[in-house]
Amino acid sequence: MADHPATVRGRLLGLGVGPGDPELITVKALRLLKSAPVVAYFVAKGKKGNAFGIIEAHLSDAQLHLPLVYPVTTEALEPPLSYEAIIADFYDSAAVVIAGHLDAGRDVAVICEGDPFFYGSYMYLHDRLATRFEAEVVPGVCSMLGGAAVLGAPLVYRNQTLSVLSGVLPEAELKRRLAHADAAVIMKLGRNFDKVRRVLDELGLAPRALYVERATMANQRIVPLAEVDPMASPYFSLLVIPGEKWQG
Amino acid sequence: MADHPATVRGRLLGLGVGPGDPELITVKALRLLKSAPVVAYFVAKGKKGNAFGIIEAHLSDAQLHLPLVYPVTTEALEPPLSYEAIIADFYDSAAVVIAGHLDAGRDVAVICEGDPFFYGSYMYLHDRLATRFEAEVVPGVCSMLGGAAVLGAPLVYRNQTLSVLSGVLPEAELKRRLAHADAAVIMKLGRNFDKVRRVLDELGLAPRALYVERATMANQRIVPLAEVDPMASPYFSLLVIPGEKWQG
Repeated sequence: MADHPATVRGRLLGLGVGPGDPELITVKALRLLKSAPVVAYFVAKGKKGNAFGIIEAHLSDAQLHLPLVYPVTTEALEPPLSYEAIIADFYDSAAVVIAGHLDAGRDVAVICEGDPFFYGSYMYLHDRLATRFEAEVVPGVCSMLGGAAVLGAPLVYRNQTLSVLSGVLPEAELKRRLAHADAAVIMKLGRNFDKVRRVLDELGLAPRALYVERATMANQRIVPLAEVDPMASPYFSLLVIPGEKWQG
Repeated sequence: MADHPATVRGRLLGLGVGPGDPELITVKALRLLKSAPVVAYFVAKGKKGNAFGIIEAHLSDAQLHLPLVYPVTTEALEPPLSYEAIIADFYDSAAVVIAGHLDAGRDVAVICEGDPFFYGSYMYLHDRLATRFEAEVVPGVCSMLGGAAVLGAPLVYRNQTLSVLSGVLPEAELKRRLAHADAAVIMKLGRNFDKVRRVLDELGLAPRALYVERATMANQRIVPLAEVDPMASPYFSLLVIPGEKWQG
């Protein structure tokens, strides 16, 4: 039997592309993005995808675009449908498609809004593939830091604790955790906004809370908390409760 | 009296330059850095400064370098010396120097390791100057995300809460806060390492904790928790306790 040189397998690249402003991508993520033969991205059905929109201008015709289209757009499904089962199947299938490219020797860049390891779908691909393939994760500017920057709100001073919470949490848990936070960021508002504002009111935190929609994106919007329409708050909105100023 | 055109005042720029790898600066911070006539940075006496080292290669001779040299290197001072008083005077003086450049119409870029609003000294300048001068903050990749990336550790899944803690906190408070955390990052280890490891051991969190020194820097070092020498742990080390995997 002749020796065949083994195909060099491709690398999985998890690239943080930042919170929205295309200039907030890192030099490293941009370099790896441009050189990857396959560019994969998560996207809702019928949408272009936020991450794709951020980096679109940098892509060339020679690169394969690989949209990974979510099969569902809400976690609230009627039985016998189960979000957990459907989404696990979806990540399994996406991992198989990507593994095919990696096995064929092609690097696959998965572009991630914000940071790949900070509440991103890339994590589910990473967990499925990084044990079998070489993987490199390029961290990115996450949305909460983009939000603090445009709000002009220093987040945490000296030895203050920062709590990062999902607005999806039950009201009682949100209240309990926020009651003990020095500083906090609440993500994933959207339809949870009304509940979150109620908790902030009850805890007396509302006067300290700052709200921003789509921070650093072209359609960014900063609105006083009291004026936010709970029915219109998008998923990509967040609340920042900065730590008490030290030596302000 | 004749009308004199007012001097256009300079802008204060707080530029996050990322966690250490010079390529982890954003395209935007790099652009603003290169065009700023004055580049200021915090630094310990006799040191070059981490932030300065990250961006040094991009500076030109035409730019004024403005080191802001910390008057003390520890918070533990003997009375009548007070760290709080000394450091407040220092920030006051630094703000005066920078205000001089801004009044003269020169933009001042303050370069910040990681992100400007995430435990950075820039915050104290921002609080002193942003009410009087136009200020723009460019968010950066913070050290905790750099750490998670090089550790290959997805930080938070779905609706998990992330707690970011300082190792300087008293042992009891660390223990209380970590006991309720889904996922955690502990910064500012250094001489606090031994105390922190003891807390992790007591809470049974040690098997989940990952340790890295100087993440993404040229001299980065990843060491199993049990093998860390508490006397040698640098300030720029951190511990990551990732959230429990979902659909791993």
